[in-house]
Amino acid sequence: MGKRVALVLAGCGVFDGSEVHEASAALVHLSRGGAQVRIFAPNIEQMHVVDHFRGSPTEEKRNVLVESARLARGNIEDLAELKVGEFDALIFPGGFGVAKNLCSWAVDGKNCTVNELVKSTLQAFHSAKKPIGLCCISPVLAAKVFPGCEVTVGQDKNVDGRFPDAETASAIVELGCKHICKDVAESHVDATNKIVTTCAFMCKAPLHEIFDGIGTMVAEVLKLS
Amino acid sequence: MGKRVALVLAGCGVFDGSEVHEASAALVHLSRGGAQVRIFAPNIEQMHVVDHFRGSPTEEKRNVLVESARLARGNIEDLAELKVGEFDALIFPGGFGVAKNLCSWAVDGKNCTVNELVKSTLQAFHSAKKPIGLCCISPVLAAKVFPGCEVTVGQDKNVDGRFPDAETASAIVELGCKHICKDVAESHVDATNKIVTTCAFMCKAPLHEIFDGIGTMVAEVLKLS
Repeated sequence: MGKRVALVLAGCGVFDGSEVHEASAALVHLSRGGAQVRIFAPNIEQMHVVDHFRGSPTEEKRNVLVESARLARGNIEDLAELKVGEFDALIFPGGFGVAKNLCSWAVDGKNCTVNELVKSTLQAFHSAKKPIGLCCISPVLAAKVFPGCEVTVGQDKNVDGRFPDAETASAIVELGCKHICKDVAESHVDATNKIVTTCAFMCKAPLHEIFDGIGTMVAEVLKLS
Repeated sequence: MGKRVALVLAGCGVFDGSEVHEASAALVHLSRGGAQVRIFAPNIEQMHVVDHFRGSPTEEKRNVLVESARLARGNIEDLAELKVGEFDALIFPGGFGVAKNLCSWAVDGKNCTVNELVKSTLQAFHSAKKPIGLCCISPVLAAKVFPGCEVTVGQDKNVDGRFPDAETASAIVELGCKHICKDVAESHVDATNKIVTTCAFMCKAPLHEIFDGIGTMVAEVLKLS
C-alpha cells in the first residue's frame, strides 16, 4: 500500500500563495512514488492578493483554502480536519504564501509567528516521528517551530547570482538552527528530526532542475515514512 | 540554440482557466528540452470565476492575462503582442478555461466561436508550417480552426470509466476532422498539419502518467520545429 501523505498549500500563485510549479512537482513525484495524497489548506483570508501581471497588491480579498483548491482540482480539505494518525508524512511546497499566510516571515523575518494550525500540525507529525518535507521558503516553518533542526534553503551566499535570498540562511542560523548549503538538485535530510528540505525556487535555476530537486525531497520523505 | 516556443494560457485553475498541472508539465518538459519559452495570454475577462473549493461560479470578475500570470510567475505577455516570426512552435495546455475563455466550446460545443486573437495566432503558425502542440480539451481549437486535421482527446468511448468526456471525440468528427484514439501516455502527430495532441486530464489517470504523456507531446513538437 502506498504511503499516506498530507500536502499543505498556502494559496495559488508564487507572490501570494503556493508556488504552483513546486506544488505540481511534489504531486507528480508523489504520484510516481505510489503515495496516497490528500491536500489541505487553512480556511483563512490571504494576507493580501498580488496582481501577478503587474507585480503589485490589489484591493481584492481571497481565501487560502478556496484559492489552493485551484491547485488541488477541487479535491482539498480544511487543514483543521487533518488527523495525523491518518498519514505517514507531511509536505509543504513553497511560495511567498507560506511566508505570508502560513506564518508572518515575509513581514517579521525570524521574529515571525506561525499560524496556530500550521504549528500544531507540524508538531503532531514531529512528535509522532513522521517525516516532514519542505521546499523553497517553507523550511523557515521548521526552523521556527523546531529550534536546533537542520534545514537548507540553498546557499548562504549569493553564489553566481543564483541565490538572491541567501540572507534567509543567516536568519535560520540566528534561530538556533543549522543551515546546510545545498544546490538545487539536492535535498538535506535531518535524520534526527526527520525533516527533509530542498531549495527549489530559492535558486534561480531552470524549471526542470527545480522539478528534479523536489523529486529528491519527495523520495527521501517516502523513504523515511 | 534552443527552440523558441510560445505557450498560451487561459487563466489559472482547471474549472475556469488553464489546468495548472498540464501547464507546469509542459514547462518542465520544455525546460528539459532546452527550449526558450515565452508565455502569453489574451487580455480579456474570464467567462466566469469558479470557486474551486465549492465547485460553483461566483460573482467575481477576473482577467485571463492577470490570472495566467500566476502560472508564469509574472513573466507573461499579452497575446496581442505575439509575433509568429519570433517562434518555432506554439503550445496550448488544457483546462476548462480553453473551452470558456479561448473559445466558447463549453457553451456551444462544435458550434463554438474561437477568440479572434487565438484563431489568428493558430493560423499564423499553421501557415508558417510551424508545429502546434495541444493537450486535454485544447485540440478542439485545432479541430475548429483546421477542418480535416487529425487530433486525439483520448478515446471515443468511455473505456473502463477512464474517459468520461468521450463524446468530445464525436464532436470533433462532426467538424470534419479525424479523431485518433490514444491512451494517456501517447501523443498523436498529424504530420501534414504539424499538429501534436495528447489527452492529458481528459483521461482519469494518475498525475505522473499525465505528466509523461505531455512529455511525449512536447518532445514531438520540439522534433518538428
